[in-house]
Amino acid sequence: MDIGGANTKAAWLDGATLRTVSRPFEIWRDRAALAAVLREVADDVCAGAPRAVAITMTAELSDAFRTKREGVTFVLDAAEQALGDRPLSVLTTEGELVSVEQARARPWDVAAANWVATARAVAEVQPDALLVDVGSTTADVIPIADGRVAATGRNDLERLLAGELVYTGALRTNLAAIAPRVPVRGDWCPVASEYFAISADVHLVLGHLTTEAYDCPTPDGRPATVAFARERIARLVCSDVDQLEAGEIDAIAAFLHGEQLRQLEEAARRVHGALPPQAPVVAVGAGAFLARPVADRLGRALADAPARWGATGGEVAPAAALAALLAARLC
Amino acid sequence: MDIGGANTKAAWLDGATLRTVSRPFEIWRDRAALAAVLREVADDVCAGAPRAVAITMTAELSDAFRTKREGVTFVLDAAEQALGDRPLSVLTTEGELVSVEQARARPWDVAAANWVATARAVAEVQPDALLVDVGSTTADVIPIADGRVAATGRNDLERLLAGELVYTGALRTNLAAIAPRVPVRGDWCPVASEYFAISADVHLVLGHLTTEAYDCPTPDGRPATVAFARERIARLVCSDVDQLEAGEIDAIAAFLHGEQLRQLEEAARRVHGALPPQAPVVAVGAGAFLARPVADRLGRALADAPARWGATGGEVAPAAALAALLAARLC
Repeated sequence: MDIGGANTKAAWLDGATLRTVSRPFEIWRDRAALAAVLREVADDVCAGAPRAVAITMTAELSDAFRTKREGVTFVLDAAEQALGDRPLSVLTTEGELVSVEQARARPWDVAAANWVATARAVAEVQPDALLVDVGSTTADVIPIADGRVAATGRNDLERLLAGELVYTGALRTNLAAIAPRVPVRGDWCPVASEYFAISADVHLVLGHLTTEAYDCPTPDGRPATVAFARERIARLVCSDVDQLEAGEIDAIAAFLHGEQLRQLEEAARRVHGALPPQAPVVAVGAGAFLARPVADRLGRALADAPARWGATGGEVAPAAALAALLAARLC
Repeated sequence: MDIGGANTKAAWLDGATLRTVSRPFEIWRDRAALAAVLREVADDVCAGAPRAVAITMTAELSDAFRTKREGVTFVLDAAEQALGDRPLSVLTTEGELVSVEQARARPWDVAAANWVATARAVAEVQPDALLVDVGSTTADVIPIADGRVAATGRNDLERLLAGELVYTGALRTNLAAIAPRVPVRGDWCPVASEYFAISADVHLVLGHLTTEAYDCPTPDGRPATVAFARERIARLVCSDVDQLEAGEIDAIAAFLHGEQLRQLEEAARRVHGALPPQAPVVAVGAGAFLARPVADRLGRALADAPARWGATGGEVAPAAALAALLAARLC
């Protein structure tokens, strides 16, 4: 199970059979419900009684918790309460599976470790690669060399500094945090620093996402359709659909898409230097459509996610990879 | 009355006596309550039965409304319901006071007009000046020449494009929208594009604001103290107070303060060109501490807000100025 701040993902592995589930759950709204949610998601995904369960998390960064230590402890408590009747282990940023007791003793080593699971799974099929996993909110840009995860950062701060964690995503990114100004009628317009529109609005308008794939709340609570998304994007420049035409709004969307690609390219250029030229970019995640163009920009081949992660396109990749890690240890 | 998206401000003028009130009311949470709030605020501020009432608004930009037209109409309806038993007029962006019927017919001319009231009041005491009014969320940078408001933009979009509206404020600005990266341990760290911390946290930590002046909700719902503000700022780089020392967090705050000043200076440089060299900067608003340094940077004298706006420091300046405009018309 991969316990995030906005979604809880689970993968059940039974021999060669993989089942995955993703459930929206915003931990800052009602953290007390976490144990119940974990139990429900586990019941949902498991086709039988599991021999063992492994967890990883990013939920500890939520401001439901004052510190990561508090967040990790809370998530471990909820996991034990919900899943503790089975052998339970926790992934570290070094890729080990440790007991809950060990995890409690070193909370910083199990915080935000889910990218390690994905990277290790990719390393098994692509011993030299640049993993670009674009999720709803963040992207992981991880070098894989000689079959090993070659990232230099371990915790979130180190990873931001290294370019290995990029805080831009396919759905939940506030447009005001993507660019300080956007083009409007041949001029640069500074943006309103409100929470008016998100990257899902951009990608819905540009046809990169369907309404069904826009599976987070809209900022204004109105539907996830192109027409409403245009209304939200117009607000970014304190405007509306009476004042701006559809084409003018779509031009803002196209610019912001370009800025997201630029940010990912910039991070990837910092990270990929030591990889051999033939190492491909492996594009993963709900925002794989943002990850794929990075290959072309770096002059690298493109490889898609391991096929066994299935149609969910990698949103559940860390959970699926973690299930495989756990199964390998049990064998 | 100055009806904003997050606060409703009112000023009562009786001869030379001015009373002002500001009430937090976030219109996107419960827009149906607006009429009741207006009635309460009016009862609160008025020491007797007013001869007339004038309103201005910025609430129409809230995403409680699909368009400005819808927002203006909604606010006019609520104002008529709450205050319609007295002669009621509405400020336009040209500085006229028009009837509610006229306002309904030209909603774009009464949307976001409150800066005109402040600018006209300043023009009466400073015929040549650069008004820099920094509020909780936005700043107005308005040239005043020969006793007239010399702004080139009228609506929000035009004003953003002209540098006359700057979307940065002393309290509510999301830090992720102020700068894409901040200094951490001698390096540049990209920021998390979440809603983890706001400009009020920066100015509380730096001693520019007291806990009492932090009169908006905190992003994490915890108290407005320096210690909790540091926790919020640390999250901006996916970190916490276990990982970053107070001095490291305060250095991030100091950088973001500098970025806000830079944005205001940049806008002011675009706007002040045609003003005579002796024209002062008039610093107004809850964020006057951000407006004052602009004078020095432009090599201009500094003049404070007209004294009669009182200790509220200009947050209620548009309401007070509007009351004076209305009174002058009644005389």
